[in-house]
Amino acid sequence: MSLLIIGSIAFDSIKTPFGRVKKAIGGSAVYASIAASYFVKPIVVGVVGKNFKREYIKMLQKHNIDTSYIQVTEGKTFFWQGYYEYDLNVAHTVKTEVNVFARFNPTLSPELKNIKFVFLGNINPELQYNVYTQINNPVLVACDTIDCWIENKRKELKKILKVVDILFINESEIRKLAEEYNILKAAKYVKKLGTKIVVVKRGEYGAICFYGDKIFSTPAYPLENVYDPTGAGDSFAGGVMGYLTLSLSNGKKFSEKLLRQAVIYGTATASFCVEDFSINKIYNISYSDIIRRYNEIKRLITF
Amino acid sequence: MSLLIIGSIAFDSIKTPFGRVKKAIGGSAVYASIAASYFVKPIVVGVVGKNFKREYIKMLQKHNIDTSYIQVTEGKTFFWQGYYEYDLNVAHTVKTEVNVFARFNPTLSPELKNIKFVFLGNINPELQYNVYTQINNPVLVACDTIDCWIENKRKELKKILKVVDILFINESEIRKLAEEYNILKAAKYVKKLGTKIVVVKRGEYGAICFYGDKIFSTPAYPLENVYDPTGAGDSFAGGVMGYLTLSLSNGKKFSEKLLRQAVIYGTATASFCVEDFSINKIYNISYSDIIRRYNEIKRLITF
Repeated sequence: MSLLIIGSIAFDSIKTPFGRVKKAIGGSAVYASIAASYFVKPIVVGVVGKNFKREYIKMLQKHNIDTSYIQVTEGKTFFWQGYYEYDLNVAHTVKTEVNVFARFNPTLSPELKNIKFVFLGNINPELQYNVYTQINNPVLVACDTIDCWIENKRKELKKILKVVDILFINESEIRKLAEEYNILKAAKYVKKLGTKIVVVKRGEYGAICFYGDKIFSTPAYPLENVYDPTGAGDSFAGGVMGYLTLSLSNGKKFSEKLLRQAVIYGTATASFCVEDFSINKIYNISYSDIIRRYNEIKRLITF
Repeated sequence: MSLLIIGSIAFDSIKTPFGRVKKAIGGSAVYASIAASYFVKPIVVGVVGKNFKREYIKMLQKHNIDTSYIQVTEGKTFFWQGYYEYDLNVAHTVKTEVNVFARFNPTLSPELKNIKFVFLGNINPELQYNVYTQINNPVLVACDTIDCWIENKRKELKKILKVVDILFINESEIRKLAEEYNILKAAKYVKKLGTKIVVVKRGEYGAICFYGDKIFSTPAYPLENVYDPTGAGDSFAGGVMGYLTLSLSNGKKFSEKLLRQAVIYGTATASFCVEDFSINKIYNISYSDIIRRYNEIKRLITF
């Protein structure tokens, strides 16, 4: 019942119309693993610099996350500085300092190679593929990606998209990847590359999911107070993958219905992420909070 | 079982990335009445100029629409010219010629004053209020509005919003009206003005509906080919009001469930509007086409 999560562990300085934080804990692996930890014990593979405080690692450990494969190396931790306007769907980058992440190229231990469930956060697709090939007979592998890889590593991205089961991707990014504005056509393009399931993240508008010839759509959980969207997409993917890992490990068979439920669990989990800066809120909820929002989403859409 | 629809009857010249039309039939009353006519026989109150061909009136008549209260007066019909980029949620106006619509100020006949169901299209809120006061004991009155009234007739708009049951409004417009970016807070503002039900239209992202302390949300029907979004909002409102008029006239009681179903009927009906320019598609479907999409939306969201 382990979910392997590979991705960035970072410091983020973020400004939104509702406040700001400086050098707060962030990164795709952090958000995804906290979200997944409500369902399973995730194992994080990542790298931090010497300036990443020991207490942060302990915080993750306390949250049912296996941190033993987080390398601490000479140098500084990945740093992102950005801001959002009122339209929280669009992040504006001020500064990215890759730091120790530049040398990140994980070699998995024999133990990790036997893990069956893998989430490849939005790192360089060459690294994603490199990790993928190290896994022995995976059951479910998902990946995420971002603009810069679509622009600069298209060939490598296509290679990993050929083999993964699920792609999590933003609406604007899938349009860029497929060079197609219509989301249905863009998803078809990705499925033709080989990806079985395409989950398009639409921020405050929820998600739309393509599986075979089926389409599944959900609105986001409606919130009156949104402070910071950073990490929402990773929390969503972490929730989806956490629930799928839990269910499949417990003997449930993969089905369209299970996928739909997983997407709602992801939606419910991610809704907490945006209600405060950094991991402040999503770190401090309980499984029953997620269940409550899952049921509220059911009431929200039922007719 | 009559639904009174007041609004513009127009010629539209439209360009989108997928084609263009010149002086095609359009206007809020036209789209809303065609959509509603799949459920009830709507009565349109509007005005056209001498250049509005008799065959257009006949087209509406053939579609189960009562056109006997459409005035034909000296002058030219309302004309709108606009275009859309790939983001079809945003209309860019090139030209608006109000023409005969400038003198539109309907006085209802005794017969019309007794109609119980009314949709006030996005005309000047002073006219909306003037029509509203002429109705004897209405059961359900809905209105729509647009940017220019929010900017220039705020006081008058608040007056009609105090008395209507339902407001249909775009996401960007409710933000402007409430001077509040968050949609939940913006809807609260409108409900405080007096409007019982607020239906926020989100284009390709569907609709979110506020009724008492309940929220209902639906994605749009996913489409691979969208040609022209003009009239989608009016078709949506027409479908919602058509279904509510049908149900309430047949003795059903108003309930949250009925409202939710009506919003899905509106969503299904509007989805046809955008699949071709002008009224080309929405005019040529059947009731069973709407039912099919209603059921498909159920499958789309069920988990």
